[in-house]
Amino acid sequence: MELVPPLDPSSPEPLYSQLYRHIRAEIESGRLAAGVRLPSVRKLAAHLGISRTPVEAAYGQLAAEGYVRSKPRSGLTVLPFEPEFSREAELRSAKPSAASASHVSAPDAASNRSAEASSRGAVMANTNSAMSTADKAGSHTASPAPEVIRKIGLPEPIDFHYGDVDLDHFPYRLWHKLLGRCFAPDQRQLFRYGDPLGEPGFRAAVSDYAYRGRGVVCPPERIVVGAGTHHTIEQLCRLLQRTPYAADRTAIAVEESMSDGIAAIFRQYGYRLVPVRLEPDGIRIEDVYDSGALIVYTTPSHQFPYGMVLSIGKRRRLLNWAAETGGLIIEDDYDGEFRYAGMPIPSLQGLDPASGDSVIYVGTFSRALAPAFRLSYAALPPALAATAASALHPFDRLASPLHQKTLELFMAGGYLQRHIRKMRNVYQRKWTALVAEARRRLEPDFRIVGGAAGLHVLLESSGGVPEERLIGLAEQAGVRVYPTSVYRIAPERTGRHAVLLGFGGLSEDSIAEGIRMLADAWLA
Amino acid sequence: MELVPPLDPSSPEPLYSQLYRHIRAEIESGRLAAGVRLPSVRKLAAHLGISRTPVEAAYGQLAAEGYVRSKPRSGLTVLPFEPEFSREAELRSAKPSAASASHVSAPDAASNRSAEASSRGAVMANTNSAMSTADKAGSHTASPAPEVIRKIGLPEPIDFHYGDVDLDHFPYRLWHKLLGRCFAPDQRQLFRYGDPLGEPGFRAAVSDYAYRGRGVVCPPERIVVGAGTHHTIEQLCRLLQRTPYAADRTAIAVEESMSDGIAAIFRQYGYRLVPVRLEPDGIRIEDVYDSGALIVYTTPSHQFPYGMVLSIGKRRRLLNWAAETGGLIIEDDYDGEFRYAGMPIPSLQGLDPASGDSVIYVGTFSRALAPAFRLSYAALPPALAATAASALHPFDRLASPLHQKTLELFMAGGYLQRHIRKMRNVYQRKWTALVAEARRRLEPDFRIVGGAAGLHVLLESSGGVPEERLIGLAEQAGVRVYPTSVYRIAPERTGRHAVLLGFGGLSEDSIAEGIRMLADAWLA
Repeated sequence: MELVPPLDPSSPEPLYSQLYRHIRAEIESGRLAAGVRLPSVRKLAAHLGISRTPVEAAYGQLAAEGYVRSKPRSGLTVLPFEPEFSREAELRSAKPSAASASHVSAPDAASNRSAEASSRGAVMANTNSAMSTADKAGSHTASPAPEVIRKIGLPEPIDFHYGDVDLDHFPYRLWHKLLGRCFAPDQRQLFRYGDPLGEPGFRAAVSDYAYRGRGVVCPPERIVVGAGTHHTIEQLCRLLQRTPYAADRTAIAVEESMSDGIAAIFRQYGYRLVPVRLEPDGIRIEDVYDSGALIVYTTPSHQFPYGMVLSIGKRRRLLNWAAETGGLIIEDDYDGEFRYAGMPIPSLQGLDPASGDSVIYVGTFSRALAPAFRLSYAALPPALAATAASALHPFDRLASPLHQKTLELFMAGGYLQRHIRKMRNVYQRKWTALVAEARRRLEPDFRIVGGAAGLHVLLESSGGVPEERLIGLAEQAGVRVYPTSVYRIAPERTGRHAVLLGFGGLSEDSIAEGIRMLADAWLA
Repeated sequence: MELVPPLDPSSPEPLYSQLYRHIRAEIESGRLAAGVRLPSVRKLAAHLGISRTPVEAAYGQLAAEGYVRSKPRSGLTVLPFEPEFSREAELRSAKPSAASASHVSAPDAASNRSAEASSRGAVMANTNSAMSTADKAGSHTASPAPEVIRKIGLPEPIDFHYGDVDLDHFPYRLWHKLLGRCFAPDQRQLFRYGDPLGEPGFRAAVSDYAYRGRGVVCPPERIVVGAGTHHTIEQLCRLLQRTPYAADRTAIAVEESMSDGIAAIFRQYGYRLVPVRLEPDGIRIEDVYDSGALIVYTTPSHQFPYGMVLSIGKRRRLLNWAAETGGLIIEDDYDGEFRYAGMPIPSLQGLDPASGDSVIYVGTFSRALAPAFRLSYAALPPALAATAASALHPFDRLASPLHQKTLELFMAGGYLQRHIRKMRNVYQRKWTALVAEARRRLEPDFRIVGGAAGLHVLLESSGGVPEERLIGLAEQAGVRVYPTSVYRIAPERTGRHAVLLGFGGLSEDSIAEGIRMLADAWLA
């Protein structure tokens, strides 16, 4: 095997990215065939005369996207790649593949174990419980009684509440300054209801951002602004009511665990949810075919809550399903900005050979920025966008024009990409602190589940301790963790032995301290 | 007849208000019996040694609230008052009564004519077409072609768009300053999702405001914050799903013309709308009984779009219906702050003898302040409030905590009441300009329909010119007016001969100019 990537050290594109693109092209063209083993990191680095770091990063990205499979001590193997999107190819390649980057050790270990379980024909080990936008879980879980807190002498519990974001690094001063421009005499139209589809200037800025940041190909006139992901999903339900995808017991294929809020909205509109099994490389495409669904709702960049990435092979097969059946895919990219191993996974929407005809992409600023602005968006296929103006009732104008304008100015100044880069580092440090402490204190009694991405991880009890007991013990110790069972759509296949920890709003010190307290509570 | 009101000129309460309260108490106690004629304004003013103005104002208020009836040239007569809320009393008093204050001449003339039509057994003259939150109408009505605008040499049409508010008198500087306080280091929690029911401080301020401004009796823990009236209605639908008032083809009795957006939401949730006829003093209570509905949705302070006030007699009969049948009343007080004749009509909720057990009050800040903040609220009955925390999914947190906090500070400083007083004068001048010009230019070919309140009026063609033609002629002349048929729930009883004009966003000069242009277009 010869790998001769044309690396250009003077290019603004990082070496790892050049290397990743080259190998990916080799696989897609068939020059690197399925089953071929890639050279080890050490060997390729020496061969190319570069350090190991970019090689590791490129390999990690390829593994995360499902181009190669990583096995402990046997390196990376090229996976089958199906350019024709045929059902046969899909069925041929129905074996699961590992989803996570090889150097992300803790979650990786979990995925690999799951992959093994799965290849033995068993139900995936890390899909036996469920999870969320955990907004719900957070607000509805009882607080520890004040007596408990007094007894243990803590002012407040350490709260691994999902949906909390880091508020120490938000650019308050800059935001306030930009917001101030909305109060200029020539900006008074911002105090009205605003455009039902979103302010035109904001939609243009979002179109540009989604393309550059997430590979979403969508002109401004196909962007529809919402007041958070849930509201955007509601808008979509309303939009679809006048199409062949209308509700009335229509099936939506969903990941077997998913956001409970979004599930509630789909059901409220009269959709029937058909759970699709999760594998280490994302949803099982055979199940999608079998579901009889007209619509698939999925979180391909970072499955909620389990964290796996939908592999490139499955992405193409899912798009193929849509092309074959006339199906529609709703891609919920709720935290796609935050990936700590390799580059961000590009959106499914941008891969659509029908230039976005079959994918509705949903993005939010609740994690990249802050929830309080209540801003999200959908990138619509052309046919749906054409009817949006007449189909969306103006009562759906829930996103404040003032916040839209401020974020438009923020994006126009280049501040959003800069802020996301900064926050990616901040969250990566928090994630690393959590995973490192959990490996040290909780393994092997607990498995860490979830990719190296986003603002949450799962801890799963290897010994089968029920979720309620884990939560109860944690609360007594002054730590709040959250249930995962609330996110399960499928009938319970196994027990409930995992809890969800959101880490976005906690400091690294609090995270490590929280994990230590959990270890004391759970392993005592 | 002797009227000896204990007037106190040194009291902070205005004379007209003292006089109004005294006469109202006399009627409620039965000391002033049904059929008694009140002294003329001139006589009572002379008798009390005060000017005519407070007497006119007190009489206007009593007439608006349905305590007395005004007839041209025969003064005011006391109407029957039913303290026992019995069905028999209701049926006995089923004759319509005039709804508007006697000195509000133009709309009054319309009401009186309607009253006469109604007492002849005819269908109400001013309910033969329908209207809106007109957000919809506004955004969905085609703009005149650019050629038309160029031809008549106007830069833009005069747009009587409903939902637009006056933006020349908004306290931008003060608001920006208060908003700035949200950026203080101790306010970072405002950048999170916030409390699903609304921020506690904001709910307390709203409770206080609703009591003082609208007579709503509701402690903060029963206030639920929404992102505009439509969103609040959606929240209510979700809340009611777990109660005996759940949808599933349950009937809601609604005014035969109503907000199309709210109608769409009720229908989306699976409610069945049963139209109730409108009379000059509000909905026909017999129809409510006959509807078999569990819920009544009504706009008692200023019917949307026709503008009549639900009389005090009918308010009590409606509350009686609720008490007898276990029914629930949703009171939408969408513009109750702006009444130009007499005092604001107190809310139905505050009248509920069961201390708000059977009324859900819905208020909004979209008109009193500006739509862009997306803030509204519901005052819930105790039983419903008790379940709200668990029944309302956190995905319903759509009101930005930043806007909630700013408005809380605005209210705490006493600025909201002051702003509303100022805007009441501003809008009264606009309303007066519209009505005066319409009387001068359009009567008798057009009737002016709507109480002396709110931010819109209707113009109805006496000659039966269809709504579409009125809109088309207006557009050609460079004026935008809006359809009323979109608001009709009942099957069409008569034609569509009325258009809606929102005047909140236009200057007095533009309003007068727009009416002159309409007269030229319609009467040519």
